[in-house]
Amino acid sequence: MNKIEHVGIAVNSLSKSVPLYEILLNTSCYKTEIVASEYVNTAFFKTGESKIELLEATDDDSAIAKFLEKKGEGIHHIAFAVDDILKEMERLKANGFVLLNDMPKKGADNKMVCFLHPKSTNGVLIELCQEIKWI
Amino acid sequence: MNKIEHVGIAVNSLSKSVPLYEILLNTSCYKTEIVASEYVNTAFFKTGESKIELLEATDDDSAIAKFLEKKGEGIHHIAFAVDDILKEMERLKANGFVLLNDMPKKGADNKMVCFLHPKSTNGVLIELCQEIKWI
Repeated sequence: MNKIEHVGIAVNSLSKSVPLYEILLNTSCYKTEIVASEYVNTAFFKTGESKIELLEATDDDSAIAKFLEKKGEGIHHIAFAVDDILKEMERLKANGFVLLNDMPKKGADNKMVCFLHPKSTNGVLIELCQEIKWI
Repeated sequence: MNKIEHVGIAVNSLSKSVPLYEILLNTSCYKTEIVASEYVNTAFFKTGESKIELLEATDDDSAIAKFLEKKGEGIHHIAFAVDDILKEMERLKANGFVLLNDMPKKGADNKMVCFLHPKSTNGVLIELCQEIKWI
């Protein structure tokens, strides 16, 4: 785990929360991105070497919609940057952590990602992410 | 807001969670600290320029004990490093954010800290923290 890549926050409405977080973090949102496969719209803010990612559901069946319904708005996950996601998945699995994905999948912000089940990490949804490089 | 200083995670037991997070983050816990005023024991891990802070309650009336009772183990807060906490508190207050402390108070890890009420930040408990410097 090289660093906190981002912290994901589930919100009801990006149109309301982006201006709020621009004031809070004192920086402009530098990117919005639709992740159609996850039924979410995302908005990113830079803070040091990490990012804050706001997540808005686009479908009632999405993981974010279910989180919002159950827990309300708030911190959804922490993502850590890794150099070799397959190796890291193997290491964590061998140590008893429960992976939610057998193989990395395409996430937002040009990343391959894998989630760990919160039951094996003290209730924390953790995302591993590796930047996709085009050679 | 200069960077994510740390992400705080509420856990039932440091003795169980510190070894777990040492494996998860692939790094040793570099410090434990009792914050008597907040009735918590804390344990810190470095990840890039940020830290992960595990928090264990030492009293049933502490904020962490109440959080654990209500929500169970999980992410408790995000802390951002600031250069001038008084100025940042003033800026946020003027913009309608609700501060939980009128004045900064002594936190863990040699910091002066102030919390923002989650109701003004989409359900996210946010901590501002400024390193204490001894001249």
